[in-house]
Amino acid sequence: MHRKLRMGMVGGGLDAFIGAVHRRAAGFDGEIELVCGCFSSSPDKSKATGHALYLPEDRVYSSFQEMIEKEKALPEGERMDFLSIVTPNHMHFPPAKLALENGFHVMCDKPMTLNLAEAKELAAIVEKSGLVFGLTHNYTGYPMVKEARDMVRNGKLGKIRKVVVEYPQGWLSKDEEHNDYKQAIWRTDPARSGAAGCMGDIGTHAENLAEYVTGLKIDELCADLTAFVPGRQLDDDGNVLLRFDNGAKGVLHASQVANGEENSLKIYVWGELGGLEWHQMEPNTLKYKTQEGQRIIRPNVGTLSASASAHWRLPAGHPEGFFEAFANLYRNFAYAVKAHMEGREADPLYDFPKAADGVRGLAFIDTVIASSQDDSTKWTKFVE
Amino acid sequence: MHRKLRMGMVGGGLDAFIGAVHRRAAGFDGEIELVCGCFSSSPDKSKATGHALYLPEDRVYSSFQEMIEKEKALPEGERMDFLSIVTPNHMHFPPAKLALENGFHVMCDKPMTLNLAEAKELAAIVEKSGLVFGLTHNYTGYPMVKEARDMVRNGKLGKIRKVVVEYPQGWLSKDEEHNDYKQAIWRTDPARSGAAGCMGDIGTHAENLAEYVTGLKIDELCADLTAFVPGRQLDDDGNVLLRFDNGAKGVLHASQVANGEENSLKIYVWGELGGLEWHQMEPNTLKYKTQEGQRIIRPNVGTLSASASAHWRLPAGHPEGFFEAFANLYRNFAYAVKAHMEGREADPLYDFPKAADGVRGLAFIDTVIASSQDDSTKWTKFVE
Amino acid sequence: MHRKLRMGMVGGGLDAFIGAVHRRAAGFDGEIELVCGCFSSSPDKSKATGHALYLPEDRVYSSFQEMIEKEKALPEGERMDFLSIVTPNHMHFPPAKLALENGFHVMCDKPMTLNLAEAKELAAIVEKSGLVFGLTHNYTGYPMVKEARDMVRNGKLGKIRKVVVEYPQGWLSKDEEHNDYKQAIWRTDPARSGAAGCMGDIGTHAENLAEYVTGLKIDELCADLTAFVPGRQLDDDGNVLLRFDNGAKGVLHASQVANGEENSLKIYVWGELGGLEWHQMEPNTLKYKTQEGQRIIRPNVGTLSASASAHWRLPAGHPEGFFEAFANLYRNFAYAVKAHMEGREADPLYDFPKAADGVRGLAFIDTVIASSQDDSTKWTKFVE
Amino acid sequence: MHRKLRMGMVGGGLDAFIGAVHRRAAGFDGEIELVCGCFSSSPDKSKATGHALYLPEDRVYSSFQEMIEKEKALPEGERMDFLSIVTPNHMHFPPAKLALENGFHVMCDKPMTLNLAEAKELAAIVEKSGLVFGLTHNYTGYPMVKEARDMVRNGKLGKIRKVVVEYPQGWLSKDEEHNDYKQAIWRTDPARSGAAGCMGDIGTHAENLAEYVTGLKIDELCADLTAFVPGRQLDDDGNVLLRFDNGAKGVLHASQVANGEENSLKIYVWGELGGLEWHQMEPNTLKYKTQEGQRIIRPNVGTLSASASAHWRLPAGHPEGFFEAFANLYRNFAYAVKAHMEGREADPLYDFPKAADGVRGLAFIDTVIASSQDDSTKWTKFVE
Repeated sequence: MHRKLRMGMVGGGLDAFIGAVHRRAAGFDGEIELVCGCFSSSPDKSKATGHALYLPEDRVYSSFQEMIEKEKALPEGERMDFLSIVTPNHMHFPPAKLALENGFHVMCDKPMTLNLAEAKELAAIVEKSGLVFGLTHNYTGYPMVKEARDMVRNGKLGKIRKVVVEYPQGWLSKDEEHNDYKQAIWRTDPARSGAAGCMGDIGTHAENLAEYVTGLKIDELCADLTAFVPGRQLDDDGNVLLRFDNGAKGVLHASQVANGEENSLKIYVWGELGGLEWHQMEPNTLKYKTQEGQRIIRPNVGTLSASASAHWRLPAGHPEGFFEAFANLYRNFAYAVKAHMEGREADPLYDFPKAADGVRGLAFIDTVIASSQDDSTKWTKFVE
Repeated sequence: MHRKLRMGMVGGGLDAFIGAVHRRAAGFDGEIELVCGCFSSSPDKSKATGHALYLPEDRVYSSFQEMIEKEKALPEGERMDFLSIVTPNHMHFPPAKLALENGFHVMCDKPMTLNLAEAKELAAIVEKSGLVFGLTHNYTGYPMVKEARDMVRNGKLGKIRKVVVEYPQGWLSKDEEHNDYKQAIWRTDPARSGAAGCMGDIGTHAENLAEYVTGLKIDELCADLTAFVPGRQLDDDGNVLLRFDNGAKGVLHASQVANGEENSLKIYVWGELGGLEWHQMEPNTLKYKTQEGQRIIRPNVGTLSASASAHWRLPAGHPEGFFEAFANLYRNFAYAVKAHMEGREADPLYDFPKAADGVRGLAFIDTVIASSQDDSTKWTKFVE
Repeated sequence: MHRKLRMGMVGGGLDAFIGAVHRRAAGFDGEIELVCGCFSSSPDKSKATGHALYLPEDRVYSSFQEMIEKEKALPEGERMDFLSIVTPNHMHFPPAKLALENGFHVMCDKPMTLNLAEAKELAAIVEKSGLVFGLTHNYTGYPMVKEARDMVRNGKLGKIRKVVVEYPQGWLSKDEEHNDYKQAIWRTDPARSGAAGCMGDIGTHAENLAEYVTGLKIDELCADLTAFVPGRQLDDDGNVLLRFDNGAKGVLHASQVANGEENSLKIYVWGELGGLEWHQMEPNTLKYKTQEGQRIIRPNVGTLSASASAHWRLPAGHPEGFFEAFANLYRNFAYAVKAHMEGREADPLYDFPKAADGVRGLAFIDTVIASSQDDSTKWTKFVE
Repeated sequence: MHRKLRMGMVGGGLDAFIGAVHRRAAGFDGEIELVCGCFSSSPDKSKATGHALYLPEDRVYSSFQEMIEKEKALPEGERMDFLSIVTPNHMHFPPAKLALENGFHVMCDKPMTLNLAEAKELAAIVEKSGLVFGLTHNYTGYPMVKEARDMVRNGKLGKIRKVVVEYPQGWLSKDEEHNDYKQAIWRTDPARSGAAGCMGDIGTHAENLAEYVTGLKIDELCADLTAFVPGRQLDDDGNVLLRFDNGAKGVLHASQVANGEENSLKIYVWGELGGLEWHQMEPNTLKYKTQEGQRIIRPNVGTLSASASAHWRLPAGHPEGFFEAFANLYRNFAYAVKAHMEGREADPLYDFPKAADGVRGLAFIDTVIASSQDDSTKWTKFVE
């Protein structure tokens, strides 16, 4: 099969932030082209978006059901090969299920579903379908995150003792959901966002990053979530003590009311032999510290892991950022889809988050909510 | 005209670095699609590249002459709208001239031509053609560079007194041109690179950045260029004293033998009222200093200039880098081409480097070479 | 009274780290001179230290009891004015008590005593004596910490919502206490260090810093302490959720097994209007962030608080560090002693930690130990 | 000889900045005590300063001549052992000469004298006297600068190719000398400061640092000095191309009108094998870069040179700054004086700048002035 993969999209109208990210990320490496979409629950908005994206009118749909039905009727090579889902959380499960059941691969925004039950059901559907399912926990797409994971795997840090992952943002410091701010409105609405606010939106990224880099699983936790802004229905801040399955301890804290912070995801991992530090806002620098000193690890400088090396595109000192990390997920997903189409195994070098990660994300949300609501229990088991 | 612009490319075979950058940058905002190319002087390599890019075979050409002739014969809307030139320096002028003379707009890598005479001739051809010509001095595409320029323009720094621009790289610290390293070979070959090595490849970026941010012109300079690596034909390092047309003084230094440096372009501008500092390797931070203190200016935080705001795509703290800055040039070029097609004036908010910048770049190269070769003259006038 | 204050010292033999810090800090501003000491429980070591410090032999003592008795017998102006206590924790209370009861002011290393009962008793003795008592929670001596406190007090951050204080060190990553490493041996020995290891040694600094900067009190907490190094008797790592008396939430984590970390105390404070960030390893930079942007606050740049301004000594850009912050405590203590001698009120601009801070430090230790040992209780009240 | 060295001081009245620095630096390590001084040309101010410093009245003098005469008459062990000179530049030579001719060692602020002729004469007097002479080019007192020098010496960088040293300050951006600002007034007055302003005050520090770290000598240079502030008599900014005696090239630029800059001395050194970077405002970090990656070198972390290790006092992560670097010079000077008194060779591990450095400093000033004034000569030889 020698052609670009053909992508359909649900969600991502012109005023949505994440839809445009997905489109740029998908197209970045020349392996995927957008061929159709249902960009809004409003048919007019969907049409306007399709027009702005230079799509033919007959490939812009009024509902994801219509899209899946009509695309399925098109010949292979013309119809979409996979569906990208970029709607608010409550609208992940229905199109994902329908797409998979109709033979379309799926790339889905995170958290995977509205709740854990849906997540498990979707994981089962993926499993049954045999199709490729990707989840955009995009921060694991950064090459220096790959390098960190590789260093832990190869024992450079020794047994891991402590993990601190933090994710302060400040954009919800005020009552933005009553300011007609679309991004704020749905993220603070339990019906569309799920049981958690900050913990669902960014806490799950932190959880995913910590488990990805360390290869450990959170075993139990103790959470204290807060809704600081008066009238807010969901948490906008949370602090969590972590215990991992190897005996390591940790802290996860995230906030959307950390006033003045941008998108300051950071992770620190310390093991018996050394430590690592990575900041999302300076993503091309990985700090590796031992009692002998500190090394600054940077893309394309010296010899790095095969994994990291497979995820940058430029010479040293040419900064790659958020879009490129996101694009790594799409490219790797595309490779997996192509392998599927050609009956090959996908190359594990080109990894990306999958349904199992999504289930853990929803389990994390459930566990922190349960822990935070129960002031009589110190440690709550993390159960998928 | 409601469609993507159609781009042809000359140069940019699979093993070239900058061709892939241009392609990703061009496609980034969904305004441009690659439709044809002559990717190598070797027809086989050109075909292989076209194939890898999923181009139809009949749109992959063996020479730029063939491409321009055959594309011109295609109907509007099918044929390429503009030509992107990503060959080594000596092969900028011929395709640019032919394209312009056949009615195609041109986007060209820098330096614009092999020498100043060609540059002036090309500028005249552009002028005469009335077509759109862009030059990829990509570092001016960063939003924080736009903000810096805007702050200078608006008098935040007062009269400019001093400018320091520095560009150390280390990748040519050894004799790479004899290691079968393609990027090194042509850049150190006068026949393909021109009279200058380091000064042409990156010194011109520094010169362009300094003049862009300050709005000043270099009036005279004093240069000391060196070829440190034995056997190297062109300078791999240079230090230059600058005098600007408003009386400001400055320093420009660039190197490709600054061992261990990645791509560390920085600029400092100081005026009567304050100073600015910007580093390409942390491009989303602009430091603004006065005697009252220092402000950190970042994309999408607080209120920034219209110019900066028009050149980022993401919320605060989501790093955009080299590709995005490069994409800004292509998007702005696309807007200008569309305006031209529709008979409108282009919006100056969406600026990009043009032929005049290219002429100054070649004049800079000529002047530093002349200055460096003449140890009896302290100040050499910068003459276009 | 126009003369330098005269200081005696207990502890601080030649091989001790903190004794030399106290001596340099005390002498730094020319207000204090060392006149006598009992530098070790070994009379020979004490003598050798006194000799190295150029003290007369008759002012070097074999026990703190002897020192206090003999110094008391000297005439005012010749005898020591105050006692500096720099012994391991279990030897803070006895000399402090004896000194105060004999009319000597006291400057004491932290934590104030071995346990909370002693701390309360000592605080009562101080109160009864009417003498000046200082405690070297030295990190509050940095001018940028003063500035941070002042900004919070003046409402620049609005109501405080979240505090994160972290203190990773790595120097005890291995079993140093069995390597004949004196600093490690006593700090991991409950008989000399008290009930806590890491939490007593550095956790109390973090607690003190958080309460100092915010003006808030920890109300309850949930702790998870660990001794990671096999055979270690005291915690070498701890993670703590905090709840403050105004409803703010927080996290405190500290470690001495964060391999590769030096002395990386940091604090983040976020309120309704903005946030602050300060790192001890870059102590001359205070970051102030709001949704309008970030300001970098530095000593002697622009207009800062009277409090900060009273605690630096150099023009902008001349870095002051750990010794200078420590010296601020001694200078302020000296001012208070002089005021006492002259029957004046001390100027609150020149503040320093006192017995009440010491009581809170021990209460913190007790509370985190109790919380950590009780896995059935989530929140443990912080009770002095 | 077992006692503290006894220091006299000329200059350093209460309102002077650098006198207090010298006093704190001298006393820092407990090896030196201030015993007498002539702190001002005004006898009243001198007395007031002596009083504030708790000196006995009979050791506070009205002139340096009186001080030298009367101190000389005191018995050894009571009289001062050496003279510290902290006056404006024009008053360095006279007291230095007189002190040396009367058998007193001398520690002198920089630049050593008002002009090169004086410098050479003073160097000859030092030579003849056999006494110890130190010069406070304090930036070479930082341990990471020692480490940098050691790395260059040991060939870690290979042959040096390029040196960039920069020293921007902003405190003279306005016409401060007409604002009754004492520090500004004498520094901009040729009669007290010498032929150069910025180049004498801080340019010489940059020159000294570059030669110290690299072990190279400047062979010729090309300078462009400017007095930007209207009415200013001396340069407040300068840019200089450098050529070193081994063929290395370089840039030195310094400014006191770099608005918003604090005291931002930086040095970059690149050799055939790697590069170094050091910033005075973050003095405890030395960056070592090669094509294999970057190492962060920090005091007391891992294994460093004997030279660096001899110049810090604290565990890792406890920042030492300007005072401590300055104190290193005094301590090393004290060691040399003690060795002299005891008839021993001084240990070269404890190095400090000497008269030869002072001569080079004045020669640098002469050379940049000459170069800058002659627009017809490109390269001016650096002649001592």
